Amino acid sequence: MRNIKVVVEYDGTDFHGFQRQAGDRTVQEELERAASQIMQEPAAVIGAGRTDAGVHACGQVINFRTHNPIPVERISVALNSVLPPDIAARSAEEVDLDFHARFDARRRCYIYRILNVPLRAPLARRYATWVRQPLAVAEMQAAALLLTGEHDFAAFCCSHGKPQQTRRTIEQLEVQQEGPWITVQIVAPSFLFRMVRTIVGALLAVGGGRKTKEDVARMLATGQRDEDCPVAPPQGLCLAWVSYGAENENI
Amino acid sequence: MRNIKVVVEYDGTDFHGFQRQAGDRTVQEELERAASQIMQEPAAVIGAGRTDAGVHACGQVINFRTHNPIPVERISVALNSVLPPDIAARSAEEVDLDFHARFDARRRCYIYRILNVPLRAPLARRYATWVRQPLAVAEMQAAALLLTGEHDFAAFCCSHGKPQQTRRTIEQLEVQQEGPWITVQIVAPSFLFRMVRTIVGALLAVGGGRKTKEDVARMLATGQRDEDCPVAPPQGLCLAWVSYGAENENI
Repeated sequence: MRNIKVVVEYDGTDFHGFQRQAGDRTVQEELERAASQIMQEPAAVIGAGRTDAGVHACGQVINFRTHNPIPVERISVALNSVLPPDIAARSAEEVDLDFHARFDARRRCYIYRILNVPLRAPLARRYATWVRQPLAVAEMQAAALLLTGEHDFAAFCCSHGKPQQTRRTIEQLEVQQEGPWITVQIVAPSFLFRMVRTIVGALLAVGGGRKTKEDVARMLATGQRDEDCPVAPPQGLCLAWVSYGAENENI
Repeated sequence: MRNIKVVVEYDGTDFHGFQRQAGDRTVQEELERAASQIMQEPAAVIGAGRTDAGVHACGQVINFRTHNPIPVERISVALNSVLPPDIAARSAEEVDLDFHARFDARRRCYIYRILNVPLRAPLARRYATWVRQPLAVAEMQAAALLLTGEHDFAAFCCSHGKPQQTRRTIEQLEVQQEGPWITVQIVAPSFLFRMVRTIVGALLAVGGGRKTKEDVARMLATGQRDEDCPVAPPQGLCLAWVSYGAENENI
């Protein structure tokens, strides 16, 4: 038995998220179909991050086990030959049999892209979120600083129907501007359900002047998110990388 | 009567090109529908460049005439409110009644984007052309130099069924590399049918070692394109800007 780790890129537009669910097209289902076809035996795919519907990935990590002796350097090309146009393997390697893409991940990095211009831009619409109103980036950066570190993020997630421990540690939360583009980069060992998009939604509210950084501090302290602080839309979000060692990986 | 000039961006993926044709979804048809709706009278749209099916534009220029007194600063937002997600106005201005977006254009700039990596990249597939084999950029640059200037480009167009004068002047043809990205930027007063994609196809053949710059010189001299020198695919191509004055415009 061998264990294969694969870095995967996908365009989330036409998927109902990563996780397999009956009747919907999912990334996991397509990967399992491709891996099973290439390995000529059923393959169960484990993913590091369960991205939502419409969320992209350029550095998702998966693993699956196989008896097939195919040389590891041929696996990416073989998978890509049977995967649909909106998913591809970027690299593959053989790892220890007990490697688990989800449970062994030390940290994940998500990048959220915002295009801040007065008129919508069709060529950017699939991979960024358009915000018409000029955003106050310095205010967003101040609010981001408040959220960095270990906190109870009960206000910055969607409950998903089940109670859970909501304490998490954000190691990095940076808001950067380059011309009309604003990017939010967020790194943490693990995230709550919809946590990244909820945080970006709050930062957008602060940038647009509808909330202050004091509002963010209050929501963090009380665990209650204001109703007028929406979740940011999915198309701006991308799972950039997943790290399994002490060092961050490059994109 | 007023004459309105509009800079337009579109994602060409789901269009059968710019030019109106019965039964197919075209950019011109969508723009005429939107302009007629906003102006509350039939509007005939003239475009600077008749882009092919699948080709994008971030700086297409159109004009149309109207009796409607709508303030010019409201036109872009009004058009965008009725245009589909894959087309938008970037700016609008009122111009002389005799301005003609196509006949008055002094020069056009197209940019062709190539992603040169071993494995395909789903997030780049819509707006760039993937080339797996490593490209020799210096060879492409040498071939580009041969094509710059005034020549008979009979070998670098598709005949479109009708004979025509095939002499054109390429003012700029630059091949630049930045990491895995290779861009071809081409500026000319006017282009023949499929000229940009035919030239990029030849440059890709040179970069891949299937042709030499001497082959390009021979095709230019004889007016005969080799059969194994294909037209580059449309999704990498974008009409970047159209200029009506002495100066080039920024993208």
